[in-house]
Amino acid sequence: MRKIKDLGEFGLIHHLASRLKFRSSDSILGIGDDCAVYPVKPGMNQVTSTDALVEDIHFKLATTTPEALGRKALSVSLSDIAAMGGTPKRVLVTLGLPKKISVQFLDKLYSGFNEICNQFKVELAGGDTVSSPKCFFINVAVIGEAKRVFTREGAKPGDLIFVTGTLGDSSLGLQLLSKNKNGRKDHKFLFKRHLDPTARVQEAGILARSKLEITSMIDVSDGLVQDLYHICKASKVGARIYQDRLPQSPEFARTCGRNSIPTLPHLLNGGEDYELLFTLPADGVKNLNRQFLKAKVLVTQVGEIALKPRKVLLELRDGTTKTLPESEGFNHF
Amino acid sequence: MRKIKDLGEFGLIHHLASRLKFRSSDSILGIGDDCAVYPVKPGMNQVTSTDALVEDIHFKLATTTPEALGRKALSVSLSDIAAMGGTPKRVLVTLGLPKKISVQFLDKLYSGFNEICNQFKVELAGGDTVSSPKCFFINVAVIGEAKRVFTREGAKPGDLIFVTGTLGDSSLGLQLLSKNKNGRKDHKFLFKRHLDPTARVQEAGILARSKLEITSMIDVSDGLVQDLYHICKASKVGARIYQDRLPQSPEFARTCGRNSIPTLPHLLNGGEDYELLFTLPADGVKNLNRQFLKAKVLVTQVGEIALKPRKVLLELRDGTTKTLPESEGFNHF
Repeated sequence: MRKIKDLGEFGLIHHLASRLKFRSSDSILGIGDDCAVYPVKPGMNQVTSTDALVEDIHFKLATTTPEALGRKALSVSLSDIAAMGGTPKRVLVTLGLPKKISVQFLDKLYSGFNEICNQFKVELAGGDTVSSPKCFFINVAVIGEAKRVFTREGAKPGDLIFVTGTLGDSSLGLQLLSKNKNGRKDHKFLFKRHLDPTARVQEAGILARSKLEITSMIDVSDGLVQDLYHICKASKVGARIYQDRLPQSPEFARTCGRNSIPTLPHLLNGGEDYELLFTLPADGVKNLNRQFLKAKVLVTQVGEIALKPRKVLLELRDGTTKTLPESEGFNHF
Repeated sequence: MRKIKDLGEFGLIHHLASRLKFRSSDSILGIGDDCAVYPVKPGMNQVTSTDALVEDIHFKLATTTPEALGRKALSVSLSDIAAMGGTPKRVLVTLGLPKKISVQFLDKLYSGFNEICNQFKVELAGGDTVSSPKCFFINVAVIGEAKRVFTREGAKPGDLIFVTGTLGDSSLGLQLLSKNKNGRKDHKFLFKRHLDPTARVQEAGILARSKLEITSMIDVSDGLVQDLYHICKASKVGARIYQDRLPQSPEFARTCGRNSIPTLPHLLNGGEDYELLFTLPADGVKNLNRQFLKAKVLVTQVGEIALKPRKVLLELRDGTTKTLPESEGFNHF
């Protein structure tokens, strides 16, 4: 019997998608990017995505709060909309509830939903609540709008690679959280980056409203390298990134420094940062930097796209270059 | 600590919905009906819904097949779109997968998805597959379109009440299935009605395209009486139904007769028939019957709407009238 584990998540998606036969005549994108895309009226597309969080796989009740969990459940879905340059509009929330979940817990969870809905002007438009005695899960389907859609497949040789925010915070936060719930201020920042990440909806809006020629975009959910490989494969190109340029938060740098934690595994393969990773031609850089500076949000050039090899290369601090393997990401199955 | 069980499913939905603050300015309907509704362009609304099936709550792997499960997971969501008079267009499928689920099983599950997608021209546009060691679940979010939207809240005194198809088959099928997987031909029909129900998308299309003044509609998922109460409450009316008119399949009637199974509990409170329950003024009946006869699909008048009392009354075969309690439906929690 063939096991799902042997296929892995992406192999499984590819395997199952290849079996689907019906495709709407108006669909622009089906399975395979962050969102499905289809026009709803001239000049306006709808983008949709769905994400589930399962207890003990994606979160532990011992290390999060119901409010943070509510925010995160929405944020990870909103991030998929941001990754396409879209604006989230509506979410449908399914809750699978074991008996241990109290009304008080749900009230706090909904406070978290509410905060994100208010912050991003997203309506919780519907849902389903079902009994699920053996596991607690939250599924969020999200519907957004996008005039321009940024997919994974337009990166061209010579394009520069950018990432918003900082990398590795979430995975370092998770590592620390598994050891100790409390900790110094730096740790609390890193915990929060894992438990309560920010969907880069604002940054996506800046890019979408700009005249910048964004040639590809994705959100960093599986780790920088794996997500960059998604762009490279879809765009049929390679990429070179620079160790020196990978953006670190001061809290990340200090914590790694103090505890002799190697930074590269977190920066390259740490998942769940939900930063935007995107490419654009070099002549757009000035405009990009100006707009992000004005909005006081961080963006960093981390590398550039090359025609060959179709790999992600890392130039180390000492000038040597290393080919990075496609997947050191986490295989749930 | 307040328990979810004490609130019940509808109490819980009401409780949680009352806490939500952000509402899109363009929303026509939020939480509370079968679907959320909002316009996407002049003359066209989008209708969306989401439904989860959890192993051992909504299905048992011992009594269904992966193909039937795939079909049912989609059908129950499509039924919500039909209940608003909409046409389903796209689904997003989340799978929570324990290790026991093989690739072969998923292939068959997808065959089921495919059949429904092809039958109703619905695209499986995206999804999420996550590891869920302790329970197998399937969540389906569905997006549909509707020019006219039929809600629960427009039923008026004097309107006649109709239901498509037959009632009670699914719940009788479930009862028989719990005793014996095999059985005579009648049993197989009833099993199928439970394991592989048909979303009444075709019937909804007939109503939507007609000039009939459908004043309210819902799908029978919680049982005739409970769903009729949903209409009565939203419309602020009461209803009278007639024992003699409740439509039974020959298989249902024969099985109940042979085994001395009382029919009324199944007809009134049996869930998951996914038939359409709707109301319209008496002057539309001829047109309605003509259209359903032409399409060779069943529709039956089961009662009428009254101003008072705001209850569902049952007129029995002996001429006496009984007030039916609001909920003898199943409380999962």
